[in-house]
Amino acid sequence: MTQITLTNATLVPCTGDRENRAFRGWIRIENGRIAALGEGDAEGEDLGGRLVTPALVDCHTHIIYGGSRAREFEQRLEGVSYEDIARSGGGILSTVNATREASEEDLVATALPRLDTLLSEGAAVVEVKSGYGLTIEDEIKMLRAARRLETLRDVRIKTTWLAAHALPPEYKDRTEAYIDEVVIAGLRTAHAEGLVDAVDGFCESIAFSADQMARVFDVAQELGLPVKLHAEQLSHQGGAQLVAERGGLSADHIEYTTKADAEALAKAGSVAVLLPGAFYTLRESQMPPVSAFRAAGCTMALATDCNPGTSPLTSLLLTMNMGATLFRMTPTECLEAVTCNAAKALGLDDCGRLAPGLRADLAIWDVTDYAELTYRIGFNPLYSRYFGGRKC
Amino acid sequence: MTQITLTNATLVPCTGDRENRAFRGWIRIENGRIAALGEGDAEGEDLGGRLVTPALVDCHTHIIYGGSRAREFEQRLEGVSYEDIARSGGGILSTVNATREASEEDLVATALPRLDTLLSEGAAVVEVKSGYGLTIEDEIKMLRAARRLETLRDVRIKTTWLAAHALPPEYKDRTEAYIDEVVIAGLRTAHAEGLVDAVDGFCESIAFSADQMARVFDVAQELGLPVKLHAEQLSHQGGAQLVAERGGLSADHIEYTTKADAEALAKAGSVAVLLPGAFYTLRESQMPPVSAFRAAGCTMALATDCNPGTSPLTSLLLTMNMGATLFRMTPTECLEAVTCNAAKALGLDDCGRLAPGLRADLAIWDVTDYAELTYRIGFNPLYSRYFGGRKC
Ligand SMILES: [Zn+2]
Ligand SMILES: [Zn+2]
Repeated sequence: MTQITLTNATLVPCTGDRENRAFRGWIRIENGRIAALGEGDAEGEDLGGRLVTPALVDCHTHIIYGGSRAREFEQRLEGVSYEDIARSGGGILSTVNATREASEEDLVATALPRLDTLLSEGAAVVEVKSGYGLTIEDEIKMLRAARRLETLRDVRIKTTWLAAHALPPEYKDRTEAYIDEVVIAGLRTAHAEGLVDAVDGFCESIAFSADQMARVFDVAQELGLPVKLHAEQLSHQGGAQLVAERGGLSADHIEYTTKADAEALAKAGSVAVLLPGAFYTLRESQMPPVSAFRAAGCTMALATDCNPGTSPLTSLLLTMNMGATLFRMTPTECLEAVTCNAAKALGLDDCGRLAPGLRADLAIWDVTDYAELTYRIGFNPLYSRYFGGRKC
Repeated sequence: MTQITLTNATLVPCTGDRENRAFRGWIRIENGRIAALGEGDAEGEDLGGRLVTPALVDCHTHIIYGGSRAREFEQRLEGVSYEDIARSGGGILSTVNATREASEEDLVATALPRLDTLLSEGAAVVEVKSGYGLTIEDEIKMLRAARRLETLRDVRIKTTWLAAHALPPEYKDRTEAYIDEVVIAGLRTAHAEGLVDAVDGFCESIAFSADQMARVFDVAQELGLPVKLHAEQLSHQGGAQLVAERGGLSADHIEYTTKADAEALAKAGSVAVLLPGAFYTLRESQMPPVSAFRAAGCTMALATDCNPGTSPLTSLLLTMNMGATLFRMTPTECLEAVTCNAAKALGLDDCGRLAPGLRADLAIWDVTDYAELTYRIGFNPLYSRYFGGRKC
């Protein structure tokens, strides 16, 4: 039996309730799990007061994609119009084309530096979506690449079927056919291959309607797969209510959610996933209704939304700072948003908190005050990381 | 004679003019200096197309300080008022008190992780200001600590006398006396010790007036020291014009500068130093007039402004992204803003560009397109760093 005790630590259990407070104590790991933790002293490895939190969870990413949009970023800043960029093959379609052209191996290789950056800041679980292939074959290639990451690094990957991300040009004006022939048919195939942990969509006037997403969710639920949605990012489309009706894992972005939506999500146990990296990059002004989420008792998570177009962000620590600076969340809320609440957004109950019986996925930080993690900008105080009880 | 040639590189010379463009080529280092560079192939270490830029320059920081303001950051987000925080000893005075209590060794030890983060992203020159001691002895202690950093790391430190940062409580209602007895008297002492590379002040309604700063600048110029100013950050006070009149190095922050100020700065050869980390942290809405600076031909630099109150930021890469995202600067402008233009803001003509005769302070990046450096958020692709011709 492998056993390790870490002592003289500042523990933040991240229970997501009033019990969550920092205390000086010890934590014992046995066979990859947290065996016990407590206040005061114990025999073991002395951490010199360093902070111990659950390892971080990034519950919304698009880290698998082909190509780069750095040129397009430059063109926009140099004054080239969106229309001209789109005409010259830019925008999301450039990512779709590059992703289609990439092999599974290419996708793995280009995603690894992004994943490694997340792990270097203490992550242990990363959600990865498809959504840049937009054919059955290319969507499945993306999820196979995502699963491969798990074999190459000390990380758990949760895969999400997001064929309903954008309408590819070959289905122009045939959205319902795309949903039947690619989104739903591909979901059945990918599920049969064991590649799908959850089903997502982009519910927006420029993408798919709530009614269209409901058809996809019907199939997801028939297959026993949990659902979630990119919802109410640029306008109010009813996506959050759809998630709540279906008891979905999360509604994500949700700048335009209402008080009623917040109450519905809270009642359904669905998580409000806030994505400040996209808010920052798009220079949005409509803030997600954090006070309404608090008042409704709705669980809030934060994620990087790492993607090449609207959030080329690979730092959960910076995401926490943005949650505080841009959305006025407290440091405690920001920390729970990337630990216990992000785990809940992925349907995981075996990680994201420090509690006996849970996986020993830990982040140890070279600070003594958890507020430092949210307060500092562009600084990584990770001291060490435990994954399944193993230091890595 | 030590000689190294790096070849198969993507070189960005950062000349600050129309000659600046990326090209595939080689660069030769001899005795710590750049001996030559050119297009095409050469014998040497193959960089596989990796990007080579001048090492970065952070031309405005306050990395030397005592204490932490993370608790206060949390209190504000939990709804505690500024007044209550100030009453309980918070705000800048908490940093002043902690800095006064700290030894020179303490100040060095707490600054090193901040410096190391800057160096890990390819910096070779860092400016460091006093300004949290506010007594002659404590201001000098800060600058001694700053100079010590240079002996501990591969970095050049440029020190700045900023006793005119805030009025300490013991001089309440006696601003002119503080200027005479501490700012000016201390400047003479610190200069005699060789501790001062430039003189700065906080020119704002809540701090010091342009007339008061002019008195300090008179002494600086008598001593042969260059001047600069925190100017027009929260309101228009005439600080930028004062800098221009005195042929100063830079006017910094400058959200409220006018077209006429921009023209005066350009004519004087003073650099406009933009500090998006403070703009972001303070959630400001008044943008610095980037178009006016461009139109006037005013040199623009970017810096972290790393400080515990309004910009706890230690990433020049993130500063570049903020320059683009928040201030709409192009990736080329952002890169020049932290290389050649930042060097100019420090009065340095021996670094910040790739040109024969200059110091071989280089940053080598694991990307091939310079736009990636500005485009990505929370990602550090530094491959290696050369300081004075030595890989470190
Ligand atoms: Zn997304
Ligand atoms: Zn400053």
